[in-house]
Amino acid sequence: MTGIGDDCSVLRIPPDREVLVTTDFSLEGVHFRREWHPPESVGHRCLTRGLSDIAAMGGEPLAAFLSLALPAKLPQRWVDGFLKGFLELAKQFGVELAGGDTSQSLAGIQGDVVVLGSIPKGKATLRSGARPGDRIYVTGALGAAAATLDLLCSGRKKKLQPTLFPGHFFPQPRIDVGRILREKKIASAMIDISDGLSTDLRHVCEESGVGAVAWEETVPRATLGRRGEPVDLRFALHGGDDYELLFTAAERVRVPSEIGGVRITAIGRIMRRRQVVLIHTNHSSSRLEPLGWEHFR
Amino acid sequence: MTGIGDDCSVLRIPPDREVLVTTDFSLEGVHFRREWHPPESVGHRCLTRGLSDIAAMGGEPLAAFLSLALPAKLPQRWVDGFLKGFLELAKQFGVELAGGDTSQSLAGIQGDVVVLGSIPKGKATLRSGARPGDRIYVTGALGAAAATLDLLCSGRKKKLQPTLFPGHFFPQPRIDVGRILREKKIASAMIDISDGLSTDLRHVCEESGVGAVAWEETVPRATLGRRGEPVDLRFALHGGDDYELLFTAAERVRVPSEIGGVRITAIGRIMRRRQVVLIHTNHSSSRLEPLGWEHFR
Repeated sequence: MTGIGDDCSVLRIPPDREVLVTTDFSLEGVHFRREWHPPESVGHRCLTRGLSDIAAMGGEPLAAFLSLALPAKLPQRWVDGFLKGFLELAKQFGVELAGGDTSQSLAGIQGDVVVLGSIPKGKATLRSGARPGDRIYVTGALGAAAATLDLLCSGRKKKLQPTLFPGHFFPQPRIDVGRILREKKIASAMIDISDGLSTDLRHVCEESGVGAVAWEETVPRATLGRRGEPVDLRFALHGGDDYELLFTAAERVRVPSEIGGVRITAIGRIMRRRQVVLIHTNHSSSRLEPLGWEHFR
Repeated sequence: MTGIGDDCSVLRIPPDREVLVTTDFSLEGVHFRREWHPPESVGHRCLTRGLSDIAAMGGEPLAAFLSLALPAKLPQRWVDGFLKGFLELAKQFGVELAGGDTSQSLAGIQGDVVVLGSIPKGKATLRSGARPGDRIYVTGALGAAAATLDLLCSGRKKKLQPTLFPGHFFPQPRIDVGRILREKKIASAMIDISDGLSTDLRHVCEESGVGAVAWEETVPRATLGRRGEPVDLRFALHGGDDYELLFTAAERVRVPSEIGGVRITAIGRIMRRRQVVLIHTNHSSSRLEPLGWEHFR
């Protein structure tokens, strides 16, 4: 990397690799609220969004670019906390903060994060690779982020202790899992669950021209807070911002039950017929409508 | 390019080239105002900022990423106009709109544009290459954008006809000039004049560890409006957003007086002593303080 203090950052891409680019807003009032989210969490979450997109392609992150528009009266300690959360996660994944932009904001804190990654030429795991008969898997457990947000929105809790709700405040991008799934040629299609399982499974089906059936009872539900209760099914099905991976694999491919300490769970199958069906615990079934979590609304 | 509809965009970089990355905010009330700037101009200007950064390295643009947060009540025709301005400029320079992000905005229109470019390995023209004795040059004429903004800010004009004030509403990034200056090994250092000549010349001096002397009378002033009057010197010296290039060249290097229809003007010399001095028309001199144009303030 050269070009620090120049008009552009200059990055050298390893030979025989392609560049991955992803860009995500983090806007106050839309993606976070200052009264709910400590600045370390805001910094962490906005980088997680980009890293998770790199993970979903099976790529490796290289560099991040942070654009930040700040209100004139924002205390410096907020910015310090934000950068702490951002840079700690960047360090964990060997990602360099390589540039960005700053501006004054007339209304609220506005961030935009770009992450560049790389991947061997032609090897990116796309959403479009799912084939009828493939099994559908998810990493980790789902619904913690949305269930936590629901607690905050309900007004029952004004503030939550972030360490007790890490799924919402400090979600982990699944970089290693995504890379291994791609390297070992396990995944036929992949996406990160940022909009909710129902919406992101729909994305895979649409891009692949297929349908799917999933079993309600197999969807791994996150547990929450000190008591460790499993979240409501609706959060696991429709809640976004968990940043787990959803992938498909051909029937003949052996899929481990765990990769790098992250549980892998089979939740359904890809079907030829272009609809997404959920089979309930009582053996009835219904369409799984994409009710992706709408941020805060 | 693949990955449209995927978590990341996938870009192939030509062999033996490095990647250039630049990212710039365009925020309503900070970088533009809806009552002053037609949407086509806002779209054009926000891409110009990124393309101009690529030009300043001597690079060639590859792809743009547009993140746009829009208020719920924004008329669709505003978005259409914005995209028209953005895409026309993108087409002019063979730049693909390769991705981005969208979000609702709770306050004002917020854009962030990322431009990726490429350049042969190790060939980027940096700000740090100026050496004592080098001549200082600028492209085109300076001050049109700031003088136009001053007209708008003064309240004397409520609205201006954009076609009569193209320097402000539709500035042209100097991609070809920057590339030729790099290819022909003319420029020893280069920057785009986005913050104003006084500020950007200071940037080059600081990064190069040198000083400079410039002659007031040689600074090419833009002409404005129907009558074509030259702008005040202060706009040419301190006005930003012109997106002309400032570069230095060794004394022995022949610098053409025009490249691709764009005038090249010598305005000063690089000095060993680390200060930036302006020689006035009356032969007195003073420090050239970096009074870079502060957007709208």
